Amino acid sequence: MIDSVAIVSGGIDSVTLLHHLVKNEQRRPAVITFAYGQKHVREIECARTHARSLGCTGHQVLDLQMLRPLFAGSALVATDVAVPAAEAVQGDPQPITYVPNRNMIFLALAVAYAESHGAGEVFYGAQQHDLYGYWDCTPQFLEQLNRVYRLNRKNAVRIRAPFVDFSKADILRRGLSLQVDYAATWSCYEGRQAACGKCPTCTERLNAFAELGVPDPLPYDRQNPC
Amino acid sequence: MIDSVAIVSGGIDSVTLLHHLVKNEQRRPAVITFAYGQKHVREIECARTHARSLGCTGHQVLDLQMLRPLFAGSALVATDVAVPAAEAVQGDPQPITYVPNRNMIFLALAVAYAESHGAGEVFYGAQQHDLYGYWDCTPQFLEQLNRVYRLNRKNAVRIRAPFVDFSKADILRRGLSLQVDYAATWSCYEGRQAACGKCPTCTERLNAFAELGVPDPLPYDRQNPC
Repeated sequence: MIDSVAIVSGGIDSVTLLHHLVKNEQRRPAVITFAYGQKHVREIECARTHARSLGCTGHQVLDLQMLRPLFAGSALVATDVAVPAAEAVQGDPQPITYVPNRNMIFLALAVAYAESHGAGEVFYGAQQHDLYGYWDCTPQFLEQLNRVYRLNRKNAVRIRAPFVDFSKADILRRGLSLQVDYAATWSCYEGRQAACGKCPTCTERLNAFAELGVPDPLPYDRQNPC
Repeated sequence: MIDSVAIVSGGIDSVTLLHHLVKNEQRRPAVITFAYGQKHVREIECARTHARSLGCTGHQVLDLQMLRPLFAGSALVATDVAVPAAEAVQGDPQPITYVPNRNMIFLALAVAYAESHGAGEVFYGAQQHDLYGYWDCTPQFLEQLNRVYRLNRKNAVRIRAPFVDFSKADILRRGLSLQVDYAATWSCYEGRQAACGKCPTCTERLNAFAELGVPDPLPYDRQNPC
């Protein structure tokens, strides 16, 4: 029997969240993961690994490739839009790596899953981004969205993002204390064999490992700055 | 070039809305329609007919059959849950015909489509239900949801539901004045050749035609009360 639904992409934030829910909070979340045409589809295998190792039942991997026309223009999906380097998005409140309304879609799907299975909460790995921003990862977004979901007349589901005020280093610190295997996570927006080390999420990841003085176990294309 | 996105199922409300947008408001909406495992999938052909006849370009019919596990328990989708008669849902604020979080999902997808194509508005056919209720068709829902979408930092999309305070008869009156062909609409939640005449939406539809003293052009299983 599940008590919640956790959206897990396979990146550091959501994988750490899943470990936190199971190990620290004794929750029994169902895991939901989305294949939406992202270039870094290899992250999904990482989500599977952790859902399995933590004994989460009913992992749903939804194939949403048909949504690609809805995400035109995002560097994470569109093959004609290059993934930018971190410097190019610094200070941008909504960079080209934003996928139009993706988080609202994922949360809406996860809420439907929760509602249909009698679970009252949906968890997602929103975090405080240091270098750039996304409107759909903020405390304000969370608060306003929960006002909407409270209108449900029989099975109101609450969205929770325990790491919404955490930096990437805060999340990593939490995960290391929980013995999360970060070799089985994927961040890089490029879909290649090794991480690029230059894109916004690689940069955030590498900075977080550097801040904690811990080596990142992933292989990188160029010399790992850690 | 589109200026908005309209969610059209093929029922009376959304088809009338589309005619209203094109004929009264001179809008150029892209139409989006969802196959989500509904028993009354034949409504989609009606959506196609009107999108085509009104010259709407870029009609997206998204195949979301894989979402069926998320909608377990709804009489509109689950084959082991019977479509109820109207009497069984009267006064129910969230009857068994409610599809868990469906409207949030559809609106989120339509917003992504709008955002990706530079359109600032999404229209949907929410109406005031007389016999029962849905939390995701109310003015409160609309208002709270728009507060969320206003947080978008570059391409905020506004959700609009011009018929949110209309009864079914009000919508029908509007549509008849616009020469909408209601023979090419579908309401009945059962997927059969003729409409059942007994389910909640058949009852609302028949009551609306009766109130206006106009015959419903659809074939019904039992004697049409009009």
